[in-house]
Amino acid sequence: MIVVMKHNAAEEDVARVTDKLEQMGYGVHLSSGENRTIIGVIGQRREEAAQTLEAMPQVEQVVFITRPFKLAGREFHPDNTVIPIGEDSVGGHELIVMAGPCAIEGEEQLMEAASAVKEAGAQVFRAGAYKPRTSPYSFQGLEQEGLQILEKVRSETGLQIVTEVMDQFTVNEVAECADIIQVGARNMQNYYLLRELGKIRKPVLLKRGLSATIEEWLMAAEYILSGGNYQVILCERGIRTFEPYTRNTLDLSAVPLVKHLSHLPVIVDPSHGTGHAHLVPAMSKAALAAGADGLMIEVHPNPEEALSDGPQSLDPGQFRELIKELKGVALSVGRLM
Amino acid sequence: MIVVMKHNAAEEDVARVTDKLEQMGYGVHLSSGENRTIIGVIGQRREEAAQTLEAMPQVEQVVFITRPFKLAGREFHPDNTVIPIGEDSVGGHELIVMAGPCAIEGEEQLMEAASAVKEAGAQVFRAGAYKPRTSPYSFQGLEQEGLQILEKVRSETGLQIVTEVMDQFTVNEVAECADIIQVGARNMQNYYLLRELGKIRKPVLLKRGLSATIEEWLMAAEYILSGGNYQVILCERGIRTFEPYTRNTLDLSAVPLVKHLSHLPVIVDPSHGTGHAHLVPAMSKAALAAGADGLMIEVHPNPEEALSDGPQSLDPGQFRELIKELKGVALSVGRLM
Amino acid sequence: MIVVMKHNAAEEDVARVTDKLEQMGYGVHLSSGENRTIIGVIGQRREEAAQTLEAMPQVEQVVFITRPFKLAGREFHPDNTVIPIGEDSVGGHELIVMAGPCAIEGEEQLMEAASAVKEAGAQVFRAGAYKPRTSPYSFQGLEQEGLQILEKVRSETGLQIVTEVMDQFTVNEVAECADIIQVGARNMQNYYLLRELGKIRKPVLLKRGLSATIEEWLMAAEYILSGGNYQVILCERGIRTFEPYTRNTLDLSAVPLVKHLSHLPVIVDPSHGTGHAHLVPAMSKAALAAGADGLMIEVHPNPEEALSDGPQSLDPGQFRELIKELKGVALSVGRLM
Amino acid sequence: MIVVMKHNAAEEDVARVTDKLEQMGYGVHLSSGENRTIIGVIGQRREEAAQTLEAMPQVEQVVFITRPFKLAGREFHPDNTVIPIGEDSVGGHELIVMAGPCAIEGEEQLMEAASAVKEAGAQVFRAGAYKPRTSPYSFQGLEQEGLQILEKVRSETGLQIVTEVMDQFTVNEVAECADIIQVGARNMQNYYLLRELGKIRKPVLLKRGLSATIEEWLMAAEYILSGGNYQVILCERGIRTFEPYTRNTLDLSAVPLVKHLSHLPVIVDPSHGTGHAHLVPAMSKAALAAGADGLMIEVHPNPEEALSDGPQSLDPGQFRELIKELKGVALSVGRLM
Repeated sequence: MIVVMKHNAAEEDVARVTDKLEQMGYGVHLSSGENRTIIGVIGQRREEAAQTLEAMPQVEQVVFITRPFKLAGREFHPDNTVIPIGEDSVGGHELIVMAGPCAIEGEEQLMEAASAVKEAGAQVFRAGAYKPRTSPYSFQGLEQEGLQILEKVRSETGLQIVTEVMDQFTVNEVAECADIIQVGARNMQNYYLLRELGKIRKPVLLKRGLSATIEEWLMAAEYILSGGNYQVILCERGIRTFEPYTRNTLDLSAVPLVKHLSHLPVIVDPSHGTGHAHLVPAMSKAALAAGADGLMIEVHPNPEEALSDGPQSLDPGQFRELIKELKGVALSVGRLM
Repeated sequence: MIVVMKHNAAEEDVARVTDKLEQMGYGVHLSSGENRTIIGVIGQRREEAAQTLEAMPQVEQVVFITRPFKLAGREFHPDNTVIPIGEDSVGGHELIVMAGPCAIEGEEQLMEAASAVKEAGAQVFRAGAYKPRTSPYSFQGLEQEGLQILEKVRSETGLQIVTEVMDQFTVNEVAECADIIQVGARNMQNYYLLRELGKIRKPVLLKRGLSATIEEWLMAAEYILSGGNYQVILCERGIRTFEPYTRNTLDLSAVPLVKHLSHLPVIVDPSHGTGHAHLVPAMSKAALAAGADGLMIEVHPNPEEALSDGPQSLDPGQFRELIKELKGVALSVGRLM
Repeated sequence: MIVVMKHNAAEEDVARVTDKLEQMGYGVHLSSGENRTIIGVIGQRREEAAQTLEAMPQVEQVVFITRPFKLAGREFHPDNTVIPIGEDSVGGHELIVMAGPCAIEGEEQLMEAASAVKEAGAQVFRAGAYKPRTSPYSFQGLEQEGLQILEKVRSETGLQIVTEVMDQFTVNEVAECADIIQVGARNMQNYYLLRELGKIRKPVLLKRGLSATIEEWLMAAEYILSGGNYQVILCERGIRTFEPYTRNTLDLSAVPLVKHLSHLPVIVDPSHGTGHAHLVPAMSKAALAAGADGLMIEVHPNPEEALSDGPQSLDPGQFRELIKELKGVALSVGRLM
Repeated sequence: MIVVMKHNAAEEDVARVTDKLEQMGYGVHLSSGENRTIIGVIGQRREEAAQTLEAMPQVEQVVFITRPFKLAGREFHPDNTVIPIGEDSVGGHELIVMAGPCAIEGEEQLMEAASAVKEAGAQVFRAGAYKPRTSPYSFQGLEQEGLQILEKVRSETGLQIVTEVMDQFTVNEVAECADIIQVGARNMQNYYLLRELGKIRKPVLLKRGLSATIEEWLMAAEYILSGGNYQVILCERGIRTFEPYTRNTLDLSAVPLVKHLSHLPVIVDPSHGTGHAHLVPAMSKAALAAGADGLMIEVHPNPEEALSDGPQSLDPGQFRELIKELKGVALSVGRLM
């Protein structure tokens, strides 16, 4: 940290700050220009310390020069993290595709969707048993019954399963059935849930919050990593902006940025990211070209019968077609799919 | 709902939609212009129905003409909801002031803060025992120990207590100690928590999410109301925008807007809303002038010693001064403080 | 400025930066911690210099510690600027009210509007002769004919006139007719226009751009001030956010913030800021309570006949009523209206 | 348009609206449900008409069902517009690359940059003679002298030239030198400039405004098209969001969206879109994969000597490398580069 004093700070103001810093266990390195004193602070970055300092008289601002994430950062972990997913993996040379309907509506629908995405080449099946819904009057998911259907899908198709967990108390229940546990955008800063996920030893798919900065997203990952679970997959799914046509604004620059700052794998969800099936193929290709380690795509056997997110779901034919096209894009950036 | 068909929709496309609507139990009212057919839909608004329809061929768009909140809306509940808070109330003629430090740091600090805010004229004391923190390495609150200190504050000062609950499993524990249970911005769409709060019979202070629209915020209130708990107080605390100087952008137009759409009381938190103590007085006055039913203000006996949010906390002297000035503003808009 | 070197910067990297700084005429103050070197830069802040430095190897970041505006800033001009407007003024103890229709539609409409706002107590009449419109097919204003009608309004009513200028080549034409020249939100960064306005000696009303930060806004004022025209009135009129209900999000925290950073007067336009007439009274009161030096309000003799912005216009009766209520709010914050 | 009446609208309220519509020359198609009347409006969409209607009593809302752009829309112009650029073209099968430094700093720098980008395979050279700068104290461009240097570049290298015009009065001067005239993001809604560009017969590169919706962007194109100049190239260059790490958020979903709504070519500027040279390669690939018709990339012979935008500029070696990689991505989506 650097503490920048105000223009007219007196010596005693500076002394007050350095005393406080020493009290807090920090080393201090003073640098007095003609007009202004700058205090270099030696020691761990701490938000609380910065807030305390900013509340002191004659302090202009506190500047952080290190990033707040340690375990998620690339600085002390330069190599990419590669996470095994069944016989496949994410974060390495090969790309991963997760596909399936938004919600589990029943066994028949799910089996149909699962065989379709498997046949097209997906490695992981996605479908929600627990569904966070804006309205209390909307379909809230099949919950435990849904998890049982998912188990059947896995045993019959051999597909890996990713499904969402909505609170810390169902983590174990979901972990028994799922190969990857998904944290939804609304729960990205549900710290109790994140801490619980730090205790298990299964991959966690951490979606970016609707209005989360990259730094906040990596700090959410840090919660899981600091609990001892190093298998975190990040998932960009669009941020909230003023543009009304798309449901969200898919921030693909987050992909190379996360790769630059962190060693964790990152995938992209163009279905939630755009909200329109007709934009999904272009944005899927763009995601791979940007360096994403995989995709999460909504596929429904019959989008117009879907209980949720129909307008953004591909049908099995469209999905099959897309997978074919994606293989070429993957190759063009040196990846395999 | 209105379903707008595409320009070139054929009769069979229209028939397909009306069949589907009738299957879903809706009444249908067809209106064919020269170029375009519009289908009026009679029956309850349902997001899922709209999504299904939007996924059908030749459907241009589905337009909602009623608002999704029923219990929170003013349409069927034209009179303001007034919620008793101890011997005071919120939502009526008199204004309420909630004040105190961000976090409970210890008994001494808390008692000092409590007597200061009481003396200055606040009716409710705020302080966090459970703290959602961006970093896993930050101070996370005193938790149960903090709740016990809060009980002491209440019994010694007679102040009402508002404090945050972070998950559905601590609702009862917090409810035992608190007079008002606070849902933080990050938890505004934690639906399990909202459902649990629908089961208790204590006032809930529901903060607006960082990137929540007014409609989503009222839908979150709808979760609590639909469980049978009608004591919901809304709290505007700033939304996330591109402006870097303020921590958030305090959206005061939310105040008259919520009053227009809903019968629920709404208060304002200018401390989190701006992030700077020097902006709190002006924005407190503005909030009352905009019609807010009260304020929630961070006050710390010694802001530079605060473990969190020091830069946005007033000291007791500043708070006392502010309360005096606010009385005049309240009177000028016909309210009492 | 402070240049923060990367963790692993070698001595020659640091030397390269200090050489470059000296070449650019800056003084240098080195501060080497155990892990990292920080270079204090003595001299004028320059964006280009910062960009050059950030492009150099082993530079982590460049931090500005002074604000980029000099003439607009309060540091070297601590007293409020008070600008005379006819027999009134803006920025002093008394508040100013500018009111009138969005566009000039004809002489009769304008005269009716002008007498209504005068009678209600406004000092300045607003109406657009030149109109920036999103669609080329929309009504674009009466242009010169409109200016002539405005002159008539002034001579017949004695009201001061504020009207918008859209490019640098009509500045003189508009200045002949107007007492205050308005720069619209879309033109806030039209630098040719700003430079031309620096050459005249009439007050300029500078609206904040839709997505302009406070700093960019004050830098736009700096363009005018640096040309020698010190009569700049800032006008907050809402910024673009994700909230769909309001046309813009009126950022009232900009008022105390501008007052803190700058000596220039600042007024608020709640009509464009919200887009709904029913929100204008509450937000007008809030603006004054926040410390605004005045208001700009759309008033139309018959809002449903307006050629533009009808839904956000008050009718004369509503305006009269509002002015009465505002007087009390003004008094409550020690201002006169 | 559809006019939705309020729940409790009386027959005379409806009659008032239909009378007004007929006065305005619209056809009317009434549809009365049990609870609510909906009025279908037959005739051209007009913003003013909608605003008038929304200001009428008992009108709930006015819904547009057609898009406001006619000439820019794909509905009446289903085939892609292909614009010749020298011996190349944009909008067809082949992709175009525009590259060069942000600003013209001098002849030597420019020639060096031009030969580098030509050698690497760019068809168009970009460099600014007129520079819009946030600060009045920043380097403002070489203006006319810069244009002369650009002419030299063209005659010596054979590269096509794109450069920015900042107002309507320099359009002809810039058009004499440039093959493509660029409208910067800050000028996207400078309607005088757009109208003037409608009168010439040279390609215009129209950058998206910082906070412009896709619809507003296409309406800006509509201004140029409606003047008779059909050669408009759209350029996505990032929008303003809350994310602080990137200079802007590059909205790549705008690419397939514009292709869906419009027949105009669209290219992407990943340099301004991200603000960091290290993100440019990934986002360039992503842009092509998303279906962009080309790229605009900042290349400087020596980024650390650049007078502006150094940190986002590639050096010639990096650019050459990137072009090689892009060829494969282009092929993978069926395009040629």
